[in-house]
Amino acid sequence: MARPIVVDVDTGTDDALALLYAVGCTDLDLRAVTCVAGNAGLEQVVENTLRVLEAAGAGDVPVAAGATKPLIERMRPEGQFHGADGLAGVELAPTSRTVADQPATELLHAAITGASEPVTLVSLAPMTNVAMLLTLHPDVADHLERLVFMGGSASVGNVTALAEFNVWQDPEAATCVVESGLPVTMYGLDVFNRLVIEQEVADRWTRSDHPAVRAAGELLHRRGTRAAGFEQDYVGVLGDAGALLVLTHPELFTTEHLPVRVNLEGLGRGQTIVDRRPHAQDQQALDRDPWPVLEVALDADLAAAAQAFVDVVDALER
Amino acid sequence: MARPIVVDVDTGTDDALALLYAVGCTDLDLRAVTCVAGNAGLEQVVENTLRVLEAAGAGDVPVAAGATKPLIERMRPEGQFHGADGLAGVELAPTSRTVADQPATELLHAAITGASEPVTLVSLAPMTNVAMLLTLHPDVADHLERLVFMGGSASVGNVTALAEFNVWQDPEAATCVVESGLPVTMYGLDVFNRLVIEQEVADRWTRSDHPAVRAAGELLHRRGTRAAGFEQDYVGVLGDAGALLVLTHPELFTTEHLPVRVNLEGLGRGQTIVDRRPHAQDQQALDRDPWPVLEVALDADLAAAAQAFVDVVDALER
Amino acid sequence: MARPIVVDVDTGTDDALALLYAVGCTDLDLRAVTCVAGNAGLEQVVENTLRVLEAAGAGDVPVAAGATKPLIERMRPEGQFHGADGLAGVELAPTSRTVADQPATELLHAAITGASEPVTLVSLAPMTNVAMLLTLHPDVADHLERLVFMGGSASVGNVTALAEFNVWQDPEAATCVVESGLPVTMYGLDVFNRLVIEQEVADRWTRSDHPAVRAAGELLHRRGTRAAGFEQDYVGVLGDAGALLVLTHPELFTTEHLPVRVNLEGLGRGQTIVDRRPHAQDQQALDRDPWPVLEVALDADLAAAAQAFVDVVDALER
Amino acid sequence: MARPIVVDVDTGTDDALALLYAVGCTDLDLRAVTCVAGNAGLEQVVENTLRVLEAAGAGDVPVAAGATKPLIERMRPEGQFHGADGLAGVELAPTSRTVADQPATELLHAAITGASEPVTLVSLAPMTNVAMLLTLHPDVADHLERLVFMGGSASVGNVTALAEFNVWQDPEAATCVVESGLPVTMYGLDVFNRLVIEQEVADRWTRSDHPAVRAAGELLHRRGTRAAGFEQDYVGVLGDAGALLVLTHPELFTTEHLPVRVNLEGLGRGQTIVDRRPHAQDQQALDRDPWPVLEVALDADLAAAAQAFVDVVDALER
Ligand SMILES: [Ca+2]
Ligand SMILES: [Ca+2]
Ligand SMILES: [Ca+2]
Ligand SMILES: [Ca+2]
Repeated sequence: MARPIVVDVDTGTDDALALLYAVGCTDLDLRAVTCVAGNAGLEQVVENTLRVLEAAGAGDVPVAAGATKPLIERMRPEGQFHGADGLAGVELAPTSRTVADQPATELLHAAITGASEPVTLVSLAPMTNVAMLLTLHPDVADHLERLVFMGGSASVGNVTALAEFNVWQDPEAATCVVESGLPVTMYGLDVFNRLVIEQEVADRWTRSDHPAVRAAGELLHRRGTRAAGFEQDYVGVLGDAGALLVLTHPELFTTEHLPVRVNLEGLGRGQTIVDRRPHAQDQQALDRDPWPVLEVALDADLAAAAQAFVDVVDALER
Repeated sequence: MARPIVVDVDTGTDDALALLYAVGCTDLDLRAVTCVAGNAGLEQVVENTLRVLEAAGAGDVPVAAGATKPLIERMRPEGQFHGADGLAGVELAPTSRTVADQPATELLHAAITGASEPVTLVSLAPMTNVAMLLTLHPDVADHLERLVFMGGSASVGNVTALAEFNVWQDPEAATCVVESGLPVTMYGLDVFNRLVIEQEVADRWTRSDHPAVRAAGELLHRRGTRAAGFEQDYVGVLGDAGALLVLTHPELFTTEHLPVRVNLEGLGRGQTIVDRRPHAQDQQALDRDPWPVLEVALDADLAAAAQAFVDVVDALER
Repeated sequence: MARPIVVDVDTGTDDALALLYAVGCTDLDLRAVTCVAGNAGLEQVVENTLRVLEAAGAGDVPVAAGATKPLIERMRPEGQFHGADGLAGVELAPTSRTVADQPATELLHAAITGASEPVTLVSLAPMTNVAMLLTLHPDVADHLERLVFMGGSASVGNVTALAEFNVWQDPEAATCVVESGLPVTMYGLDVFNRLVIEQEVADRWTRSDHPAVRAAGELLHRRGTRAAGFEQDYVGVLGDAGALLVLTHPELFTTEHLPVRVNLEGLGRGQTIVDRRPHAQDQQALDRDPWPVLEVALDADLAAAAQAFVDVVDALER
Repeated sequence: MARPIVVDVDTGTDDALALLYAVGCTDLDLRAVTCVAGNAGLEQVVENTLRVLEAAGAGDVPVAAGATKPLIERMRPEGQFHGADGLAGVELAPTSRTVADQPATELLHAAITGASEPVTLVSLAPMTNVAMLLTLHPDVADHLERLVFMGGSASVGNVTALAEFNVWQDPEAATCVVESGLPVTMYGLDVFNRLVIEQEVADRWTRSDHPAVRAAGELLHRRGTRAAGFEQDYVGVLGDAGALLVLTHPELFTTEHLPVRVNLEGLGRGQTIVDRRPHAQDQQALDRDPWPVLEVALDADLAAAAQAFVDVVDALER
């Protein structure tokens, strides 16, 4: 049976690719999509999300809008990286799909608690919506299978020496999630930065007649590295979709259960501190203030994971 | 015309007194009450709030439940101070009033944006609900006359050397409010600690037949100081209701427009830093990062303010 | 018998006035003076100090140079306030006095441990030298009567909303002193800002033939407030010398023993947190991490304290 | 010509090994050794240091004592790791060598500024002494070839998830060094944890008649890992001496010039933040507040480096 998921996004070139995967993958049952400000402003994120779902031929998946800004940080949209429209200029056809009346927190609450089996919550964006959900509606804990987020790093950051964008954009929200006591999987830069789709595939897709497949190819051509901007040659970092691959293909990922905290202060603000010392967990157990232990993705069979993504997009065409 | 207000509470002995005032005062039009965890757990706060409204003979004021905990801090209910039930043992009759289906954020949003004139939002509790409202529904800004909160201090703290309970319990939420750009009035410990109702009045009220008036008297007998607990003699600190008196009797309060920030870090966590230096505002103007300027209550005609409260409670009896 | 003291200075208009008092006051026996960067760069501070001692007709008091900068903060000399030369343009005659070969830490160590009775260490500047003394030579603890510092505030700051210059300039050094376990008296802005010498006195002194008395008058004319600069009318804030008056005239000062910590982090960096809550000390006693308890000057008989200073300067002339 | 060096130690099993290397290596000219509290209390460190120099047959190298504690942190000697005596129970013969009258800062100052050629300053301990030297005697900058410190990490910490002992024990002192503007080489845990001496060598040395060689063997048998204590099998981590090997055999080490800052706040306190992002330096250049750029040792030809150490100890026997 397909795994029921709800996904929070800030679409975003790689959120778009992740949504295509979520719609196309027969092992996932996409029940709701909620939007948050991040890679672009909230309105643009909503419009991008609706168009991506349309292109992918998604069924009647409800979409709701959430936070227009982080809890206390100023908005710093990743315009440089995803372009002003969040999609780096990749154009998608308008759609008659509309956003729900209820806000993101209420749609998530309804979708999660209304399901007959436990739901997996996937966060691909700053965790503002998710933090408000957990604060307003703690009853979702009883209905969640797991929470998977793209964010953080157990090694090097991107927006700062130590911090990854999603966590850095709303470190308080990330704290709320990490300290929630829920079973949480962190898909951070440690694998994110290395999981790429080959240019040959992207080139093939850009010639497709299927709008979603063509979009996938075009989006991959924009998936560069932060440092270099868009002028560079093809890079093809897959991004957010990796967090879904961890769900559908756990056998391809190396994860460890490690103590994790979000650093809120000073130069390290926005860092996910992952305690990778040998025996760290034993030491923590002795601590008066034990750290939350998360499942952290540290490595992957990159080629096989990439192929799993490619297979799903190829199947959209059929 | 009465001023339309919505009030967020964590009832609490002094929230109860404030609600009596809000219902009884003809200059205020109480449109909605929302509840948040603080002085007691959320369920208890909701029950206390419904019973207080019943005792006061409030009309059909909708009540909604919000956050069960602060955004990232652990819950630390003020059980020692307000008792396990939040009302220090003062008993109120059960009521058939019920809590709304929608959460606090949605009720506040509807009440504020649905009003035909600007609404004043009064926060008498940790600002978790209010912060989520401003994050999820920034459109309320266009419909708010002003935001008044009981919290903070321009001098000495209570739960720490520097921090007052409401701000300390959810400093991130307080930051969200203080940095919101809205017109904000801070009613902190500087006046809060000094505005008391005389024992003679409280004693008279405890002998009343009117349930709300009798409750007011009993509650005042429990309004001690943090340090001493409940064993002490009568103290009668009025508390939260002072924030409503600032609205109804501004002429009795001395306020200044001062730069204010919430301190999130280290020993000062939970402090409201109020820049009281002479010329501080001029200096701030030159700063690359100007501080929000709030209206801060620093002094009051204490006797007249107390009398204004007494008059409203006395009028409940008629 | 005169109280033996050693004084650490960053001369500075008000350090100059304090040195005149230390030399002239028969109740004080000035054993050594050490210099630290602060109001001016170290070289200028040394030169100013030597000239002030000469003008005051001090005996053979050794002077040593110490830190050229704070432990980790960048140098931010108070040039705006004390002028580029530290003396706001007040000119003093050159002197043949010279600075010692040994650094400040070694002179302080020798002067303190070499005395036959306990010595009082007076800090009128950023506490870099004193912190290094305590770190390198903890044996001074057995030879110190008390440590008095001008710095900090139990209420409003000056260089920031919360921080006073001396502590803010080297908060780590202040921490070292406050946490030293020594008997410490803090003379902060709470009295500092209010202890003034009347203009009539200053005017009389400026007409004196005695170089030190004339200098005292001229210096007082420069003792303005931070906000207004030098253009303003006479203000006459005495400044650092107040910390010596606490020693010679304790009966004129109201002090309390209060828990104090130095705030190192965030917006409050450089603040001295003084816990002024009622019963705070009792509460601290229950704490796992009790705060150091300092004697803090909170009020004074300002007129009498000013007169005590005036008497000493007047006596220089005889 | 041998490179003139002065070394600051907290001897310590691995400081002892480093001192043997410094004495025995013909490419190094050991001019002075200063002691600081760290692995053991100051008195024990001094005694250990004198005995190691005696065992190694060092010439007339002056030894001075410095700080008895970090600038503001509490002393937390690594008793668990190096044993109460700092040498994990390895016994060395008493010596008639004595500690200098002058404190560490003055000996370092004299040795550095008195040399006819530039001197290299090597720190193998918490940097309290070095920070005070740079603060009191900035003129050493003109006489220093380079400053090399064992401390920090560009990846995982040891005493905390992020922090290495020497930096964590006195993060303010480390800040002073890192921000000094001197040419600095950081030899952190990235190589430190991996540079080991084979048990076969250690076993051979323990059977030597030469006291220093035998001590080297015995010390290596105590060089375990923090997590496991002393009960474990042979590990043989060389430790501090690696920082000297970087000087004598730079060709065996991979270093990069990277932006580095010391983290003073919150959960990351004591961490050396090393900005390892691609292009980080370019990005920093654009920053208003550029980070110090240090030479950081990231990798080594571990076998060749170990052999270089073995050769020097073997030569002691001849
Ligand atoms: Ca995203
Ligand atoms: Ca309340
Ligand atoms: Ca001074
Ligand atoms: Ca060492």
